Amino acid sequence: MLRVIKIGGQVIDSPELLRKFLVEFSALEGPKILVHGGGIDATRMAKRLGIEIKMNDGRRITDASMLEVVIQSFTSLNKRIVSQLQGFGTTAIGLCGADMDSIRAKKREHTEIDYGFVGDIVNVDFSAIQKILNLGVTPVFCALTHDGNGRLLNTNADTIASALAQNSGIATELVYCFEKKGVLENENDEESLIKSFTRSTYNEYLETGVIHSGMKPKLYNAFDALEKGVRKVRITHFTSLSGGTEVKL
Amino acid sequence: MLRVIKIGGQVIDSPELLRKFLVEFSALEGPKILVHGGGIDATRMAKRLGIEIKMNDGRRITDASMLEVVIQSFTSLNKRIVSQLQGFGTTAIGLCGADMDSIRAKKREHTEIDYGFVGDIVNVDFSAIQKILNLGVTPVFCALTHDGNGRLLNTNADTIASALAQNSGIATELVYCFEKKGVLENENDEESLIKSFTRSTYNEYLETGVIHSGMKPKLYNAFDALEKGVRKVRITHFTSLSGGTEVKL
Repeated sequence: MLRVIKIGGQVIDSPELLRKFLVEFSALEGPKILVHGGGIDATRMAKRLGIEIKMNDGRRITDASMLEVVIQSFTSLNKRIVSQLQGFGTTAIGLCGADMDSIRAKKREHTEIDYGFVGDIVNVDFSAIQKILNLGVTPVFCALTHDGNGRLLNTNADTIASALAQNSGIATELVYCFEKKGVLENENDEESLIKSFTRSTYNEYLETGVIHSGMKPKLYNAFDALEKGVRKVRITHFTSLSGGTEVKL
Repeated sequence: MLRVIKIGGQVIDSPELLRKFLVEFSALEGPKILVHGGGIDATRMAKRLGIEIKMNDGRRITDASMLEVVIQSFTSLNKRIVSQLQGFGTTAIGLCGADMDSIRAKKREHTEIDYGFVGDIVNVDFSAIQKILNLGVTPVFCALTHDGNGRLLNTNADTIASALAQNSGIATELVYCFEKKGVLENENDEESLIKSFTRSTYNEYLETGVIHSGMKPKLYNAFDALEKGVRKVRITHFTSLSGGTEVKL
């Protein structure tokens, strides 16, 4: 089974945690794809450059100068990850959606809020990615897509991971990993891991209001992926890639 | 015949010139590899971040903070180029030496001057690159190598292009292109193009002192490549990829 593993959050912002994760990732047998975000570093770089961080309802507005910073931050982290993976014995290649036209997106049209250079995925050419996998090479994607006309766009890494898994054409497990053990009953108690999480569990928890707000988009993506044919979805700790919470319909 | 084309200088610093070059590059038939530098943007970014630019005898000293800027600058330009090439119909993939362990280097040991995180190439695994070419995909390399232990290093783009051409194992033409027509008798007169330039021409010119100083390393690389089996070497304008000066032994 192909595994599409998304890493984000504090892990990619800490050289020590990232290293631990990459050791785990390298040890995984079988075909795999890594997808990473990179938000914190981009924000820090923007601050150093005196670029104003514009947000709306928790979402970043990516104007032209912020896009430049995002591209620099994501692509440089991408190649640093590839270099480390090579050091751990994984033959890797650092990609974004522009490479081989693998993930094409459309700049989000604004209704009330202009989110700037944010891309909504319109096509995944998994055949291109499959050719790389067939070479025994592990693709590492950063959170950039392109519009087919020479412009890179910022696309959420969770969404990219889900889109890759949905379009693989083969049995695929989608794994979201981060610094918590998985979906927790109590976000401050790592021992309150929910091992199996279904949509009915979700509805119950929504009523009692205990789902951590940062978890909602992950669960939304998880259910969406399962509905669109992804075989398995897991939300787990970055050192336990086969553990954590299994999300089921 | 495989073509390895290196673009640098003012061309990559101007969106308009870069666009013109990429249109020319896209129109070239046959297997090809693009190698690009990116020095001017890295310098500008370093200045914006208040990082001191350290030079010794015209060569940049790449300390840790400069390396970070160089990686950001080179990798982001790399993916912007890929995105543009896709727009012009070329299926491209953006690489550095870490990808598939294609170009391994050793951090330069310092004798008197510590040049910092600068890599001297120790191995080119062209078989990995050939696999990409076999997919009908055009590799686009930025001027980064790696040490095999997770560290990216800065390596001169001219040198990377030459190393790729030398190690291709197939008949290869190495093309250095920039904003001049080729090697000029008088660097201020674009009509003074020398169409064929040999080592004996070089020695004559060295005596009369008319070779522009920026041209010397290019010619040095050119002769070196020819001696190491590269079939053809050309130094030419970025819109005339089959013209300019042919360098011969």
